[in-house]
Amino acid sequence: MPKTIVEKILSKSSGKDLKAGDYAFADIDLAMANDITAPLAVEGFQQIADKVWDPNKIYIPLDHQAPADSINAAENHKKLREFAREQGIKLYDVGEGVCHQLMLENHVEPGQLVIGADSHTCTYGAVGAFATGVGSTDMAAAFATGKLWFKVPQTIKINLTGQTKQNVSAKDIILKLCKKIEADGALYKALEITGPTTKNLTIPSRATLTNMAIEMGAKTAIIQPDKKTEEYTGVEAPEWLYSDPDADYVQEIELDVSSLEPQIAVPHQVDNVHDITEVEGTKIDQVFIGSCTNGRLEDLEAAAKVVKGRSFSEDVRVIVVPASRDVYNKAEEKGFLKTLFEAGAVVEAPCCGPCMGGSFGLLAGGEVGLATSNRNFRGREGSPDAEVYLSSPEVAAESGIQGKIAKPRGDF
Amino acid sequence: MPKTIVEKILSKSSGKDLKAGDYAFADIDLAMANDITAPLAVEGFQQIADKVWDPNKIYIPLDHQAPADSINAAENHKKLREFAREQGIKLYDVGEGVCHQLMLENHVEPGQLVIGADSHTCTYGAVGAFATGVGSTDMAAAFATGKLWFKVPQTIKINLTGQTKQNVSAKDIILKLCKKIEADGALYKALEITGPTTKNLTIPSRATLTNMAIEMGAKTAIIQPDKKTEEYTGVEAPEWLYSDPDADYVQEIELDVSSLEPQIAVPHQVDNVHDITEVEGTKIDQVFIGSCTNGRLEDLEAAAKVVKGRSFSEDVRVIVVPASRDVYNKAEEKGFLKTLFEAGAVVEAPCCGPCMGGSFGLLAGGEVGLATSNRNFRGREGSPDAEVYLSSPEVAAESGIQGKIAKPRGDF
Repeated sequence: MPKTIVEKILSKSSGKDLKAGDYAFADIDLAMANDITAPLAVEGFQQIADKVWDPNKIYIPLDHQAPADSINAAENHKKLREFAREQGIKLYDVGEGVCHQLMLENHVEPGQLVIGADSHTCTYGAVGAFATGVGSTDMAAAFATGKLWFKVPQTIKINLTGQTKQNVSAKDIILKLCKKIEADGALYKALEITGPTTKNLTIPSRATLTNMAIEMGAKTAIIQPDKKTEEYTGVEAPEWLYSDPDADYVQEIELDVSSLEPQIAVPHQVDNVHDITEVEGTKIDQVFIGSCTNGRLEDLEAAAKVVKGRSFSEDVRVIVVPASRDVYNKAEEKGFLKTLFEAGAVVEAPCCGPCMGGSFGLLAGGEVGLATSNRNFRGREGSPDAEVYLSSPEVAAESGIQGKIAKPRGDF
Repeated sequence: MPKTIVEKILSKSSGKDLKAGDYAFADIDLAMANDITAPLAVEGFQQIADKVWDPNKIYIPLDHQAPADSINAAENHKKLREFAREQGIKLYDVGEGVCHQLMLENHVEPGQLVIGADSHTCTYGAVGAFATGVGSTDMAAAFATGKLWFKVPQTIKINLTGQTKQNVSAKDIILKLCKKIEADGALYKALEITGPTTKNLTIPSRATLTNMAIEMGAKTAIIQPDKKTEEYTGVEAPEWLYSDPDADYVQEIELDVSSLEPQIAVPHQVDNVHDITEVEGTKIDQVFIGSCTNGRLEDLEAAAKVVKGRSFSEDVRVIVVPASRDVYNKAEEKGFLKTLFEAGAVVEAPCCGPCMGGSFGLLAGGEVGLATSNRNFRGREGSPDAEVYLSSPEVAAESGIQGKIAKPRGDF
């Protein structure tokens, strides 16, 4: 029976021969919960068990309210540290980075079944894992048993072709797909992102693509592993892992990225995406470069290249938050942070930053933010009367310089 | 009539020949209000006037909740930006640094009368200015008129002698003075800090001394300017500025610092100060290196020297917040930030940081923090059930490494 990569992973994890639509009672390879979702998961877990199923397969990063931005957050962090110590679980403390980046850098391997109590867990599909977000109560059950029910999703195949223009990057591709597929266009489907363009992307760029699958309602996104995946993870991808040529896809989407110009998601929906030409000149008050979508080394490099030797507008706060300690360290060593700092940016320690609108970098009513993150819902980054636009790091950097949404250098 | 430096400054600023106990209706040279106090000052000002008395003498740094840590903070920042733009006032936006450090680095000159809507405004006495904290309504009146009433304070002369031991620094001296004078021992008095030890201190170290005058109830602290002051400020100190040899002092205090060991302020009072020997071994959960007391370049250098090549305890979060963009930049160039980062510190952008317990780095109930800042009141750094100890950067660094209050290398 020919299978997609998703069907294969869920078949393997459940020890059954499953197709889309079947139910899998599957063994979890890795489970992640962050400081927002773990407290409830721990509480639920403690009602049903004493010892977690396998402490070596659970990770708890403190990233959303880090360092603790309220007494409540501090109390949650304290409880999580105690829980992790008592169970022997690896906890990433404040300053280590965004949960998804830490999982990608350090733990996830091709072919794994990974759950995370955070909607952007789908990011790990970048290395050929089936990874999906679950609620805190599901996570509580997984902590106790290492197992969870899944309905095997149908797969939409996305074939990316063509070479992007200068200063057009993965974020522009995924925003274009959000526009094309729309916010509910992939409900409970898996996106298998493939094609020559995908092959040419680095793992971090692939992660920008898979990260935003949830913005189309998808259960996950996945990219078949290759040499780059093996180099990045340090693990050989298993032979059984590849979609069969005659696997069933519920839909196939073609996107030629050759003529794509930078894309902007306009308030207040992620799929309200426009060519930059339609919105350039929009005045902005704040730029945020970071997040699990675009806070990686190559994102900071792209921004630094645009900025090099220039200065950010005095009317714009530019907040840069590397996605992990490793990213921070490398970006510092390569001078990217220095370039951004010298241009006027505020460089903060690795964490989720302004993305969730709870910790710092909140917008006031009437203010306009441009962010490299993944959501621009009303109130997401502060006041419900603020507006958030989403873009690539290249556009964010150029716009920070010009004080308005602006095209970076390029043929568009 | 012989006068103290304080009497001279207030006489000059009011155009009258004044002694301690007299009232001065004085011209303000500089006025500062930060993001916590400026909103109310602006509101008050707008009820009594349209234009500030002199936009070139007013500064508004956004430092306590920066970048905005709540929608309310974001709204305040927005209003302050608008006010500053409309009045032509210099506003230091988020990421520029702690108000007092910015004033000291960029504006305050010997002999000036400076008010700030923040209790630690007394810091500027480090460069021979009379500087004191005022409330937001006083600041509103000053915004409108450039004048304010003062009762000329009596002066306590503090004569510092002797050479401190290795890893004993200005913070230890001022903590020792807090113990000696007590929290209400200098109510409405000025502290004139003098003597050979003071002369040997750098301006940043002098600022650590003057910063904490308010912790003894003092109206201000002041150090007579010298060559170092002139070099630091780039301004020649006026000849009239020095205390007359036969000036009246209400009290004279001698402190020989030669045998001083590192000092620790123990919860929950700043004047509850002990030799480190009495409290070493106390387990800590968090270290904060920063603030207007000890967030300057030499403080980060002192911490980095202690840390060099070693690692912070895994059980301690170490949060480093340089006091200004200039400090950050120099500490980065000199490798101090790198040393602290590599040891495991979380390095944040310049701001007040955990000092006020509102923005980030809050402590949970039952947790113990060690901070280089100036207040350890109950609830100051998070939960009212947390405990905060105060120390020098040297002690903070060593304690961060050992996971408990610990002596840095030294003969004590």
